[in-house]
Order: sequence, then structure tokens, then C-alpha cells
Amino acid sequence: MSIRRSARAFAPASVGNVGVGFDILGHALDAVGDVVVASRSDMPGVSVTDISGVVADLPTIVERNTAGRAVQSMWDDMQPGFGVTLAIEKGIPLGSGMGGSAASAVAAVVAANALLPEPIDLDGLFPYALIGEAVASGSVHADNVAASLFGGLVYAYAAGDGDVRNARVPVPAGLQCVLVHPHCEIQTRDARLALNADVALPIAVEHSANLAGVMLACHSGDLELLRRSLRDVLVEPQRAHLVPGFAKVKQAALAAGALGCSLSGSGPSLFAWAETTFARDIATAMSRVFASDKMACDVWVSAIDAPGARLTEQVE
Amino acid sequence: MSIRRSARAFAPASVGNVGVGFDILGHALDAVGDVVVASRSDMPGVSVTDISGVVADLPTIVERNTAGRAVQSMWDDMQPGFGVTLAIEKGIPLGSGMGGSAASAVAAVVAANALLPEPIDLDGLFPYALIGEAVASGSVHADNVAASLFGGLVYAYAAGDGDVRNARVPVPAGLQCVLVHPHCEIQTRDARLALNADVALPIAVEHSANLAGVMLACHSGDLELLRRSLRDVLVEPQRAHLVPGFAKVKQAALAAGALGCSLSGSGPSLFAWAETTFARDIATAMSRVFASDKMACDVWVSAIDAPGARLTEQVE
Repeated sequence: MSIRRSARAFAPASVGNVGVGFDILGHALDAVGDVVVASRSDMPGVSVTDISGVVADLPTIVERNTAGRAVQSMWDDMQPGFGVTLAIEKGIPLGSGMGGSAASAVAAVVAANALLPEPIDLDGLFPYALIGEAVASGSVHADNVAASLFGGLVYAYAAGDGDVRNARVPVPAGLQCVLVHPHCEIQTRDARLALNADVALPIAVEHSANLAGVMLACHSGDLELLRRSLRDVLVEPQRAHLVPGFAKVKQAALAAGALGCSLSGSGPSLFAWAETTFARDIATAMSRVFASDKMACDVWVSAIDAPGARLTEQVE
Repeated sequence: MSIRRSARAFAPASVGNVGVGFDILGHALDAVGDVVVASRSDMPGVSVTDISGVVADLPTIVERNTAGRAVQSMWDDMQPGFGVTLAIEKGIPLGSGMGGSAASAVAAVVAANALLPEPIDLDGLFPYALIGEAVASGSVHADNVAASLFGGLVYAYAAGDGDVRNARVPVPAGLQCVLVHPHCEIQTRDARLALNADVALPIAVEHSANLAGVMLACHSGDLELLRRSLRDVLVEPQRAHLVPGFAKVKQAALAAGALGCSLSGSGPSLFAWAETTFARDIATAMSRVFASDKMACDVWVSAIDAPGARLTEQVE
């Protein structure tokens, strides 16, 4: 049996919530992501040896690092009889709403898994990546993790009692995602604190109607139903104020033809879904509004059905 | 052009809410329904001339009768230049949670439509049936109306601003619905009063996760996902006490193999979804529990993908 000495994995950024699926829907982006190199070590246990890229000031203490904690939980279960070091290359900005903590956890388990004599499948890796991501967000949220791991548009929910659900949602042909990242930071924990403990029943019903509408439209390709349903009535009204210029940028996206536009995860990034033919114009319209407010931003146009995490290099 | 003097239409009973789709999901039942005979009249306007069947003490004043109000709203728009009389034969018990008021409104618009020189399609009839049903429930709820009109499992939502959505949801092969109607009455208005004005955010999220799980399982046929997801965490906990013996009957259904079991509409009827092979045993198990509590009940086993409303007789 060949033994791998090291493996390098890429895990993409992702859009969490997707407007109608607070904590249960996410989709991958093919624009940017995190990389983790896992290397076999003679020292037992898990250690984080290096953090580089667009974010450098993350904790290297394993228990407090999303990548380290994810692989540690895996190693605790697997007891592979050797140690592992993790080198993290962050491509996703901190506090951007692009699923950076999920991507680091996902890239780490995918890379570390390749070192095992008998690697497990993605479904098997999912719970470990969830444990890692929870270090950053304070509780288990599956949407970004599932999107980054499996790719595409995914439904994911950790109901407790071991009921961890995930399922792929089809994406209608000819749609893309525009993602705009203004250069300000929102911490997921702070964004959670912005949410009221209760929801008015009619809002909960409208939220569920929008979610079901999007699920059905994704299966049928009914873009008119998608346009009517891709609206966040649950969290966007409570979080929009955290992003300077949110309303104007969203309005610009819709005016330029977007089917829907809302916060990506807990923001400050905004995502818009659109027919491919409008995507570039929407990207330009959104970034222009931020620019006119003297807010620098990055803009990506991505597939919604973008690939998930993958190994990019292995050394035997 | 031939002119029809009268037309008779049948509209089936239905399961509203379907556990995970409060106010937005419903499905038809092929067991029982209401019939309306619409007849051309020389007197202008709409009148309700007869109410017979299992319920007789309904208002015949057009504005307060679901069938009358539905056809009146249609006649106001259409101005067909002749009057119509409606004779209603109720097959669905009052306050049963089986969508009786929706079925009367639906049967009425389908029958009356057949008298028009140029009948409109079902999508066109939907808004008029909604107006009729609202007389009984106090506000517009589309789930029972859409299920009875279109048949099958349907998503329906009246968002306001003319955004009336409806879409068919596929039903996995080999599933049936067991419906048990205990002989006690719950008025929809009273059941609505039992609901709290607010929902805790984690409950709203769990509700949405269950809804999305059922939507995805219906498309993929994943019965394990369906079983995990077909759970009402939103309204059942607040309404179960209105139905004597609810918890025991539900438990009996699940123990006999049901994928899920909850209130049909606002109750007191319970529905259970199950693989066909278990349906009869589930029906027996549920009715036995009611019987042991000295509660008489009717039991039906129906397709979930049951046919919707249809004309059964026309006289030229």
C-alpha cells in the first residue's frame, strides 16, 4: 500500500443562506477559496504550522482553528497512528460572508483524508468539517460547509440526534451568481446577535413560501417563480443595516436584471442570481454603487453549480 | 355556439398544511368531496338555492357562503349577462380539517365556469375560489383550494400584490395517504386563535429545514429524507391538544410504519403518509386508538397524487 506524505486540497468560497435558506442552503463559488496542505508527521496529533494568504492573524492553537479542530476530531475517531501538520493558505477574506471558515475546515479534512491508508468519502468527511466550522461561528451551521465540500447548490441541516441531512438541489441552466465583496468586515457572531429571538408567524410563513418556491423553481426551471420567491424576508431586514449602501446596491442589481439579491451568509458580501446574459452588467452596476460611496469592493461572476473541494496535489 | 343550461362539478377533500407546509402545501384526497350543480337562471346574479348532504346548516346568503361568494366574484368580473343558481351537496363534514369550505368554493367555480360561453382554465378559476374560501376561514389561504382545484400535491401561496403562486410537487411512487377523521369539530378560526403570534427563530429554521427536506425528497424519492423531514414543529405542538388522543394516534401511525403523521389542516383529522404496503395497517392502528377512547372516526386510504376537481355532468 502506498503511503502519501502530503496532500494539498482546495475548498471554494460559498454563498450561505442564499436568501431563502437561512442556515440550510448554500452554494459553492468557483472564484476563490482556501488551500490546506496536510503533511504526515512523526509527532503524534494535529498541529497548525503555517497560515498565509489574505488572512494571517488566525489562531494556530488547534482547538481554536477551524482547520485544526476539524482534523483533530477526525484523528480522534480514526486513530491513524501518525500525526499531521496543516499549512493553511487563505484565499477568502475574513468576515466577508463568503464562507471562509467553512472552506478552511473543508480543505483541511479533504487534504488530511488523503493521508489515511483508507480515505473515506465526502459524506463521511462532512461531520468533521462541521465540527471545525463550529469553532468560528459558535454553533453548527451546515450550509457553507456542505456547499464548499460537495459543490453546487446544497441543502444541509444538522437537526441534532445525529440527523445530519444533505441533498443536492438542481440549478436551472443558464444562471450565474454575482458576488460583490465590499471591503468591510462582519463577524458571523455579531451578525447572529443582530437577529431577534422571535419571528412573527406571518414572516415565518412567507419565508417558508419563498423557500419552497425557490426549491420548486430550481427543479422546474420556472424563472418567474424563482424571481418572485428569491426574497429574504427573515434575516435581511434585520441585517441589512450592517452593510453600508445595501439597499442601493441591491436595487441596482435588480434594476440590471437580477432574479434576486441578498446578503451572502451574514454579509457584508451580496450575492445576486441572474441569467448569464445579465451577469456582467449586474456586477458592474453593483460595484459602481459601492464605488460611488467610496467603498472598495471585489466582484466575481461564478457558476452556481460550481465544483466543490478537491485534491490538487499529492506526494507519495 | 351551444349553451349549457346546467353543469355538475365534483371537488375533492384535501389535506392542508401537510405537516411541513403551513398555509402553503396541500394535497387532494380521492375519498370524498363536495358537489355543486350550477344552473343558468333568468334572474340576474348569483343565488344559493339548496344545501344538502352531510352538512345542511350553512348560510345561503351568497356573501356568506363560500360557493356563492366565489361565483359572485367571478360573475362580477365576467358579467356574462345571465344569472346562476347553485345547489350544493356537501360530502365533507364541517370543521373536519378536510378542506370542506375550499371544496365547495372549487366545485362551484368549476360548475359555474361550464355555463360561460367561453370557459376559462383552472389557473383563471383559482383566484375566484380563493375569494370564496376566505369567507369561511377569515383570510386567504390557498393550500386547500389549490389542492382541491388542481389535484395532487401542490404548493400555493397568495403573497399579496397579485403574486398568487402555485406549482405542482411530484409525489414519489408507491406512497399513499391515510386520513382519519374523528367525530369532533374544530373551526378553522378557533384553530388559528390557538397559534402564538410569534415563533422562536430556531423553530422557524427547523420548520424551513423540514419543508425543504420534504420538497427535495418528493423530487428525488429519498424516503429516508422524507421520514426525517415530515415533521410539524411549527403548528402541531400548538394545536395537538385540540384533538383528544392526538399523541397516541400519531404514535400508533408511526409505529405501524408511517413516514410521518400530523394534523390535516387545522384538524381534528389526522393524515399519515406511508408506503402503500403499510397503509391499511396504519389506518387500522389509528382508528383502533380512537375506538379505544370511545371516539368514533372515519378512515380513508387515498392516493396523494389524487385527481382534482372535474365536471361530472353537463346539460345543453
